Amino acid sequence: MAERSLVFPADEFRHRVARLQEEMAGQGLDALLLTTAADIFYVTGFLTRFWESPARPWFLIVPATGDPVAVIPSIGAALMARTWIGAIRTWDAPHPGDDGVSLLVDTLCSLLPDQARIGVPMGLETQLRMPLADYERVAAGIAPRRFVDGTGAVQRVREVKSAAEVEAIRTSCAIAGRAFARVPEIAGPGRPLDRVFRDFQAMLLQEGADWVSYLAGGAGPDGYGDVISPASSDPLQGGDVLMLDTGAVRNGYFCDFDRNYTVGPASDAVKRTHAALWEATEDTLAALRPGMLARDAHRLLSEALVRRGAEPGGGRLGHGLGITLTEWPSFTPLDHTPLREGMVLTLEPGALVAPGRMLVHEETIVLRAHGPELLSPRAPLDMPELS
Amino acid sequence: MAERSLVFPADEFRHRVARLQEEMAGQGLDALLLTTAADIFYVTGFLTRFWESPARPWFLIVPATGDPVAVIPSIGAALMARTWIGAIRTWDAPHPGDDGVSLLVDTLCSLLPDQARIGVPMGLETQLRMPLADYERVAAGIAPRRFVDGTGAVQRVREVKSAAEVEAIRTSCAIAGRAFARVPEIAGPGRPLDRVFRDFQAMLLQEGADWVSYLAGGAGPDGYGDVISPASSDPLQGGDVLMLDTGAVRNGYFCDFDRNYTVGPASDAVKRTHAALWEATEDTLAALRPGMLARDAHRLLSEALVRRGAEPGGGRLGHGLGITLTEWPSFTPLDHTPLREGMVLTLEPGALVAPGRMLVHEETIVLRAHGPELLSPRAPLDMPELS
Repeated sequence: MAERSLVFPADEFRHRVARLQEEMAGQGLDALLLTTAADIFYVTGFLTRFWESPARPWFLIVPATGDPVAVIPSIGAALMARTWIGAIRTWDAPHPGDDGVSLLVDTLCSLLPDQARIGVPMGLETQLRMPLADYERVAAGIAPRRFVDGTGAVQRVREVKSAAEVEAIRTSCAIAGRAFARVPEIAGPGRPLDRVFRDFQAMLLQEGADWVSYLAGGAGPDGYGDVISPASSDPLQGGDVLMLDTGAVRNGYFCDFDRNYTVGPASDAVKRTHAALWEATEDTLAALRPGMLARDAHRLLSEALVRRGAEPGGGRLGHGLGITLTEWPSFTPLDHTPLREGMVLTLEPGALVAPGRMLVHEETIVLRAHGPELLSPRAPLDMPELS
Repeated sequence: MAERSLVFPADEFRHRVARLQEEMAGQGLDALLLTTAADIFYVTGFLTRFWESPARPWFLIVPATGDPVAVIPSIGAALMARTWIGAIRTWDAPHPGDDGVSLLVDTLCSLLPDQARIGVPMGLETQLRMPLADYERVAAGIAPRRFVDGTGAVQRVREVKSAAEVEAIRTSCAIAGRAFARVPEIAGPGRPLDRVFRDFQAMLLQEGADWVSYLAGGAGPDGYGDVISPASSDPLQGGDVLMLDTGAVRNGYFCDFDRNYTVGPASDAVKRTHAALWEATEDTLAALRPGMLARDAHRLLSEALVRRGAEPGGGRLGHGLGITLTEWPSFTPLDHTPLREGMVLTLEPGALVAPGRMLVHEETIVLRAHGPELLSPRAPLDMPELS
């Protein structure tokens, strides 16, 4: 039986590499060293849940010209060979004495000149997915070649989605949209919240998610206290607002948006706050344009919330997404990242209903030349009532 | 509504910290700096799927004496406050200019003497979950205090599970066991593999999993080509062997084991190989003891496979697990980690049926003084037949 390999045609990946190489040239990088599931999937199409095991590091080298080279544990050779990547070097991992270090050093040294500057993502919203001590051994082993910050080269490319990526995210959003529409089947007064969480994940799978990497939410009278807690076994009660926020994955691409429901009739304060969130989102959908900065999106949402009579919650009010649940930029007053055509973003305004009680509203969009196009099916102005 | 907070009583966590501090004393460490979901959950009970977002770093400091100090994004303050941790310092993340760096530096400097050695897990099977450039800024900021390798201190403690942890893993294993028993409801000839994967995840949720962090598998005549691929949409066919391998999570604890099924009658070669895997597991269940090394488990399984007439596959033949899908040690010829009473481990022998076609068998155990106790319900000697 042929297992599924590439999500997209090889040309999609070749085009990504060409864009990376263009950025690298602009920044004087002779190569990129990538270590995370997202970065390696982005370049190769190598898609597996095996990243859940922290046991083994994986490496992909993108040279300034030519095709990438994979330096990976042998357990991944068969799957990587079904991607478009031809150059695959393997070692038997985990190896306590030398877990890919010498193979990576040899590969970098054979590919790159002595004075090479090798970009490694090491800035905001990045992580290095290999043991730190091994990174330091590799850095010593490749001298006089050296590692430098490659964050910008990767982020400027990944943040602008191709047409195929936008359609993949739209598909994930549609799956979640169908599941959100069915929440009245599984939630209502007396239903324990943890059971709602389980049933909602099962519905996401039924609607076509390959897996459900993220589900959070909350429930309580006049809103919820935080949006990152696991579910309790407490039953939903009349007057509660239930919020579910999911990152469901199809073909390696995430959606990220939430929906709110009222258990029985909503209080006036809840209705007012939800309306303000919904209208602030409308205002921002109408106003956001490429060329603005991430902080402008924060300002648009904050000002609209105040104008609509709501008290903005703290934290960021939206962010990028795609092959991880969240990606840069962040809609905060401090993020100066330019917003560009083709970025996929969330608009995520939050507002306080009462002290310690909030509502959060979220949609997924793609930024077009003329403004946002919704990828998530637009939330209703009036929250659905669960009975 | 009260959200669920601590999985275990606070005394469980206090005991863990005491054990960590004992190891730290033995290694001359003045503190540990922890950054991963697993390490921070282990010490605090802080459980959230929010780690799926790579946007923000999280820090926990375990001093040589006294209680841990959390240095975390403010979005996590409410949830952390419901754990047993009293000292919580927060900043508004993500902050492009200073994403927790100065707060972490200030905290480390105020807690620790100038000559402090601060352990950071940086060895095999570890990752640093913060931007590398920020780590280097923190390292410069805390001088003359310095970071050293803290892998051993963390791993020697985490690898021996408490009674409460063993019961948590047993619960996760029982959930998966019930779902595996129901696979004939969802799999059979003509059923697409990706649909089986979706339905199986939904069954794991129905049986009590909080979420399904890992599902892999394969299907094909005389076995499968690799064990890390996502599912294709190809339908199961008579003569296929179907394997499902899951890491389902309940209360933050994983199971990890697989099951094999035949679609219609199995070939003699498949029957012989599966019997050899099953019997090699029996042999190892009878022989494994604390005081052996990880490589001894590899030897026991390999020798038993050969004795039972099978050709051992490559790679490791088992590993630790608990709060991640896989943990050290690894059952390879190279891993000298001593096996200790209370370790939770998998026995995972694989064997070739034909070139490029393998079967893998897996059980989860806890190592007792007298030998292994099964946590997964033992696989049947004869594979269930799907029709």
